[in-house]
Amino acid sequence: MKIDEIIEKIDQENLNSLIILKPENIAYITGFMPSSTSVLILKEEPVFLTSKLDLEEASQKSTVQLEEFKSLSDIKKTLKETVSGKVGVENSMTVGTCKKLCEDFQVEITEIIEGLRTIKSPDEIKKIKGAIKIAEDSFKDLDFSATEDNLAAQLEYNMRSAGSLRPSFETIVASGPRSSLPHASTTSQIVESPIMIDWGAFYHNYASDTTRTIIKTEEEEEILSIVLEAHKKAIETIKPGVKASYIDKVARNVIEDYGYGDNFIHSTGHGVGLEIHEKPSLSPKSDEKLRKGMVVTVEPGIYIEGKFGVRIEDMILVKNQAKILTNLPRKIFA
Amino acid sequence: MKIDEIIEKIDQENLNSLIILKPENIAYITGFMPSSTSVLILKEEPVFLTSKLDLEEASQKSTVQLEEFKSLSDIKKTLKETVSGKVGVENSMTVGTCKKLCEDFQVEITEIIEGLRTIKSPDEIKKIKGAIKIAEDSFKDLDFSATEDNLAAQLEYNMRSAGSLRPSFETIVASGPRSSLPHASTTSQIVESPIMIDWGAFYHNYASDTTRTIIKTEEEEEILSIVLEAHKKAIETIKPGVKASYIDKVARNVIEDYGYGDNFIHSTGHGVGLEIHEKPSLSPKSDEKLRKGMVVTVEPGIYIEGKFGVRIEDMILVKNQAKILTNLPRKIFA
Repeated sequence: MKIDEIIEKIDQENLNSLIILKPENIAYITGFMPSSTSVLILKEEPVFLTSKLDLEEASQKSTVQLEEFKSLSDIKKTLKETVSGKVGVENSMTVGTCKKLCEDFQVEITEIIEGLRTIKSPDEIKKIKGAIKIAEDSFKDLDFSATEDNLAAQLEYNMRSAGSLRPSFETIVASGPRSSLPHASTTSQIVESPIMIDWGAFYHNYASDTTRTIIKTEEEEEILSIVLEAHKKAIETIKPGVKASYIDKVARNVIEDYGYGDNFIHSTGHGVGLEIHEKPSLSPKSDEKLRKGMVVTVEPGIYIEGKFGVRIEDMILVKNQAKILTNLPRKIFA
Repeated sequence: MKIDEIIEKIDQENLNSLIILKPENIAYITGFMPSSTSVLILKEEPVFLTSKLDLEEASQKSTVQLEEFKSLSDIKKTLKETVSGKVGVENSMTVGTCKKLCEDFQVEITEIIEGLRTIKSPDEIKKIKGAIKIAEDSFKDLDFSATEDNLAAQLEYNMRSAGSLRPSFETIVASGPRSSLPHASTTSQIVESPIMIDWGAFYHNYASDTTRTIIKTEEEEEILSIVLEAHKKAIETIKPGVKASYIDKVARNVIEDYGYGDNFIHSTGHGVGLEIHEKPSLSPKSDEKLRKGMVVTVEPGIYIEGKFGVRIEDMILVKNQAKILTNLPRKIFA
């Protein structure tokens, strides 16, 4: 059972208990994603406190016994009475919350849950595939004679109608010279070539993440070919035990060899699951190794300021080698 | 000038400088909303570090001089060399970031920026009105013979096409018995009566927030009347100097008088601006007072578990009295 495994890790790290506030971590453990402040305290007897707002829905979905969350100072009192020794907290706990909650015991930042979350269970992989299916189905039959805003609206309408409660991040439709901005917001301008689209869905709280760049000119096709070569070599290098930073290096080397090293201004990929960006990071600075069951993106890009940019992104499941989970063609002409 | 005003507050609080990471706070000060880790350090000479990903767009929009963000440890080094005394950090800074950044100086949590943000400038009010206009226009011509998912999709399509980069929160379409869940996610079921819709847009980074409950039966109308009475009395009580908790009390008293006190399971309202939930909180526990220029919601609701719920929410600008910014009718029949 998941909670037993976590309690074991808590013991191994010599922690008395673990305080969890991040909604994705709570969803991972309880099956319920809270919409407002909730606190899960893991020790011999787990306690899950959620606000009145969520209580009815949580009681239908949570696998952990529920109580009503009233205030952090109430929880602080209970912890003072029951906790001794070091208490684990998440990286993402805010200093404001820590000030209110953690005065009476020694705090240690731990990534126990984030660590466990890197390895996806068959059920989690099914949900990720569900998100990919929604995102890919939503990419069909788009009307490209539209503004960037409207093209994003079409994609998001399709995903939302199919049950994705929100895009997994702000949909990027960056066309013409704006495609050189890797995180551009959409504008009210009619799309022009090339059209970089980066989008994803949620399915049962699990995310997808894909990028396609729709090209037209020979120059764009040339850049796309370089990106695709980096993309292919990186994916071929993926297997358990390989350093995440090495995958980045392989992709980066290809792009550098063609003289575009300075134009690849982000890392090669990242884990995807309950969060759109999670461990491991496929970046030069990463100290992680790939393991079986990880799901990561591979997304090399070349951005030529003032002209255009090209990025191709797919999602990969690490098995004995890479298994590509995304299915759309990578070379799409306008 | 905004920065001068902040520097003055920093001096008043005896801080050496202020470290800002929250994207909304950065947007408030610089005009640019970062899409990835960015750090703004306010002292005599402000420094704004943003990642390569955002650098091109930020340089077009930011009013503060830019540098490239490389790593927290680089910033830590610079701070060690240049900072003495206490450094202000935001409530929302994570303990993970604080551990990497704040080792060499004394940290004090401050809400200088959040405090300033409660009072909206004429330009900010214009943007909030822009968000309301998008949200309200998007509410017209909806096809109600749809699933909850699709009704939310229609609303969000309209808002996205009109330039709202994302809904200001996950659109709630909770119909029939599900309307008793105040934060319900949409489902694939066809909408039934009553239909609670809670939605909002962004316009130039500023949010809107409105709820309407479309009713059908006499019982639903009766509950709506109570909610509307609470809503009206709360709004009539709004003026500068009144305690935010008192506005909550006024609304709550009405609902209690009708015997539904236990069915009003959230606070009466909250500030809205760059964030969908910001200061002040109109709740029993709030210690804030209303001030001219604040923008808040008033949103009483009654939730009868297993049966249905009704909530009506409008946005109010605090002037010499309340000015209601939202314009849709409050009594809508299916």
